[in-house]
Amino acid sequence: MPPDPLPPIPRRADAERNRAKILEAVRTAFADPQSEVSMAEISQRAGVGMATLYRNFPGRRELLETLYVDEVDVVCAAAGALPAATSGARFVAWIHDCFSFYNSKRHVGDELLKDSKDNRPLLGGSRARVMDAGRPLLVAAQQSGEIRDDVTLEQILDMVIAIAQIHGEPGYLEPILRTALDGLSDMKA
Amino acid sequence: MPPDPLPPIPRRADAERNRAKILEAVRTAFADPQSEVSMAEISQRAGVGMATLYRNFPGRRELLETLYVDEVDVVCAAAGALPAATSGARFVAWIHDCFSFYNSKRHVGDELLKDSKDNRPLLGGSRARVMDAGRPLLVAAQQSGEIRDDVTLEQILDMVIAIAQIHGEPGYLEPILRTALDGLSDMKA
Repeated sequence: MPPDPLPPIPRRADAERNRAKILEAVRTAFADPQSEVSMAEISQRAGVGMATLYRNFPGRRELLETLYVDEVDVVCAAAGALPAATSGARFVAWIHDCFSFYNSKRHVGDELLKDSKDNRPLLGGSRARVMDAGRPLLVAAQQSGEIRDDVTLEQILDMVIAIAQIHGEPGYLEPILRTALDGLSDMKA
Repeated sequence: MPPDPLPPIPRRADAERNRAKILEAVRTAFADPQSEVSMAEISQRAGVGMATLYRNFPGRRELLETLYVDEVDVVCAAAGALPAATSGARFVAWIHDCFSFYNSKRHVGDELLKDSKDNRPLLGGSRARVMDAGRPLLVAAQQSGEIRDDVTLEQILDMVIAIAQIHGEPGYLEPILRTALDGLSDMKA
């Protein structure tokens, strides 16, 4: 999603490339615990000048917001395009995507909240979009009897977000997520 | 556990009663979201004078610490005394106790952490005691094949604590906990 509030203006190919390089640099910088994610570091990592960086993003906060919204788009788009044998498997695969998103983005989300309380609508709006994308998947999986129907999508997402925020390496969190997702299965009902 | 570092001194019955009344007042004050849990309010709720209150507890922080340690004792003692038909049911019942503890005590824990970083050993030590109390229950439940053995007690506790910290009423959290605990059962393995 373009960050401009105005209708999208056609971009030249190199401007698009610069923008993509910048977002990729922010993404990898945030994955690196040693990184400071300053504008200077992003400029260096992306291989674009400071002027180009600032022309695309007035500041660090706009960068983070764009990254966040961008990745919410990916999670939402995935909901409609996951290859899976059954609706239950499709829902569980999508929940894994959500887990990865909330696990990798928790620092971005924390920082957006810390930077400014104005970001609550952005984060709340993102959650609403994720919910809208996942709801048809859950309905189908519950109707097929593969996923228990005594929990709502909101409760399932809260559970996944809570697990994504546990302090630990991926190898530590993975069995916890697997346990909780096994509990979602309706096989014992 | 008495809060004094010295060997326990026999207390007169009324001193014991005052102490119990004070702790009960702190417990109910913390359960009430409108309460400020000030020393004055505790004195009033417990029906003891400020002098008696301060003789027992030099300040609010000592009160909270004692309450916290006291309730950890209860969780630990429960581990050895839960009536249940099987070792799996016993472990799950104990995990419910842990959930209730972490759900009701999260504000006390948060405040102890906020008040002073010195409280990290208290909270860390409490967690270690809870782990020691629960480990034999988990070992028995895993050996009987009732609880899956690809998760450790540390991972199970982290999962339960994460769910206990989700924002919501008990009726909202209960199905989330039930889902996660169903996932612990080894019936599908």
